[in-house]
Amino acid sequence: MTTQKGFDPQDFRAALGTFTTGVTIITARTASGEPIGITANSFNSVSLNPPLVLWSLAKNARSLDTFLTTRHWNVHVLSIDQEALSGRFARQGEDKFAGLETEEGVSKAPLLTDCTARFQCRTAFSYEGGDHVIFVGEVLAYDRSSRPPLVYQGGQYALTARKPREEVRLASAPPPDCSYTEDLLGYLLGRSHYQMLHALRQLLDTQALDERSFFVLSVLSIRDGLTLDEINAFIGYTGLLATTDSMNALEAQRLVAVETGYGALRYVLTADGREASLRQIALAKAVEEDIASRLGPGDVMALKLLLKRLIASSNPGMPDLWAPR
Amino acid sequence: MTTQKGFDPQDFRAALGTFTTGVTIITARTASGEPIGITANSFNSVSLNPPLVLWSLAKNARSLDTFLTTRHWNVHVLSIDQEALSGRFARQGEDKFAGLETEEGVSKAPLLTDCTARFQCRTAFSYEGGDHVIFVGEVLAYDRSSRPPLVYQGGQYALTARKPREEVRLASAPPPDCSYTEDLLGYLLGRSHYQMLHALRQLLDTQALDERSFFVLSVLSIRDGLTLDEINAFIGYTGLLATTDSMNALEAQRLVAVETGYGALRYVLTADGREASLRQIALAKAVEEDIASRLGPGDVMALKLLLKRLIASSNPGMPDLWAPR
Repeated sequence: MTTQKGFDPQDFRAALGTFTTGVTIITARTASGEPIGITANSFNSVSLNPPLVLWSLAKNARSLDTFLTTRHWNVHVLSIDQEALSGRFARQGEDKFAGLETEEGVSKAPLLTDCTARFQCRTAFSYEGGDHVIFVGEVLAYDRSSRPPLVYQGGQYALTARKPREEVRLASAPPPDCSYTEDLLGYLLGRSHYQMLHALRQLLDTQALDERSFFVLSVLSIRDGLTLDEINAFIGYTGLLATTDSMNALEAQRLVAVETGYGALRYVLTADGREASLRQIALAKAVEEDIASRLGPGDVMALKLLLKRLIASSNPGMPDLWAPR
Repeated sequence: MTTQKGFDPQDFRAALGTFTTGVTIITARTASGEPIGITANSFNSVSLNPPLVLWSLAKNARSLDTFLTTRHWNVHVLSIDQEALSGRFARQGEDKFAGLETEEGVSKAPLLTDCTARFQCRTAFSYEGGDHVIFVGEVLAYDRSSRPPLVYQGGQYALTARKPREEVRLASAPPPDCSYTEDLLGYLLGRSHYQMLHALRQLLDTQALDERSFFVLSVLSIRDGLTLDEINAFIGYTGLLATTDSMNALEAQRLVAVETGYGALRYVLTADGREASLRQIALAKAVEEDIASRLGPGDVMALKLLLKRLIASSNPGMPDLWAPR
């Protein structure tokens, strides 16, 4: 199959898909009062004064007649948390509004909630656009929230990592012959890790604990009753291994206790050990919240997503700490 | 100032800006043969068959007459590396094409190089759009590269972190009462760091070196002739401090040498030490390239950007390792 120009449609679509967009759901109400809605990424702003926006709808869309006859429709710029909603409104056949909370707007067109922004529009023009109709709407009302927006690029959903106006540089530019630079991913991950650990270390000092003890207590806070070997299977990736001596020290601090009922020695957290671990995790969360307030919630979600992908793609085969037993 | 609808233009623009877009430069040639071009993020695809795209141009733009009279224009979807070009074509008054390589396309409109994608178009329709004109172009030719695209969101440039179709989960869902989850940023950073370190550790084992020695050699590979205190000022953030004993061990391995000429003992790398450090950095780069091939170049750039922003925003005051002396 080719287009009129002889383009391969799949390849042409892929080329168009390199242009990044947000994701919107556009809603209206049929003449008989039924709510309808479709996912579209062909939205864009047109004019500030008068306030106009546009989007395109395929001529073979089942909702075309409604959008050509009703004059009112609402554009919802979806937030990161609305990926499932995007999928629901992109599919045909199901009751897209089932269980969805909607609000009243300036027209009868349904208003979805929890979006990044909403534009309530009235058709100003509808234009010929090949196999699509281009709808230009006058914005009658709008609102927005601080929810980070969902993004679409290359046929995939995405999050954004925003670039500050000033270039982010940690240090002076290295001399040209220097192969070790601040741009090395390993350096950036190490430095991020150790800086995040900075506040935790101060807490560990007051608890008379070291990093290895922190990892041991963390593992035991998730899975109690582990042998030394089992503990080390979970923390070995840090390069810090627990020993009988180090576990004895934790026992002397009354943070762990030993169970001998099942053959091998098994370690459990005491109430004090659980309390110490909870304080460490609470501090880790406070440090994370501080970071999130500086980077912004969307950027932190993007960072976590990228780290998870990095971990999943370089996993040397770690056991699942959270697996049910 | 308000729009016809009584909207505050700045606020309305901010609401529109929540819709993420790519960044394009659109070029044409004036009747007298001068190349012109402007940055626009109002681009979008319209139709597959016939192949149509659109963008909007302010009616007060100096290039309006040219775009209304010439029928040919090229859309360039900019890559991550073309942020400066975007800025150049967004400003007025300078010779935007000075020093720029351009190519010949199907029309006389200039074709810029090194973009993510390019669409060579002929005006199919131009439509009324309030304070803008909407240009709908038939795509006569297009091409694309694998360069990750530049993104614009909320008035800032951005990179994307793509979400795979399947949710990225490292482990089973924790029980509801478990406060330590894989979603903790500290956990993700620690695990990423240690997994990246995994391959390096194996090399260090063959070099009979530990992590502390790796940090010491890395610092000395950038700045030679440091005292013990100066070395520790640079590596102290890792929690691993060099001691006279640990430096003596590196000296015994003939990786560092001591200079005594300037009062305090100063350490320099030997040729063997430099060689050992170069092998470590080469391995770190190989590990990074492997990660980059799995995540994709744009995602790795987004990850680095986010890590730099995290480091800059949580910097406990580390000295600049790369600063000129």
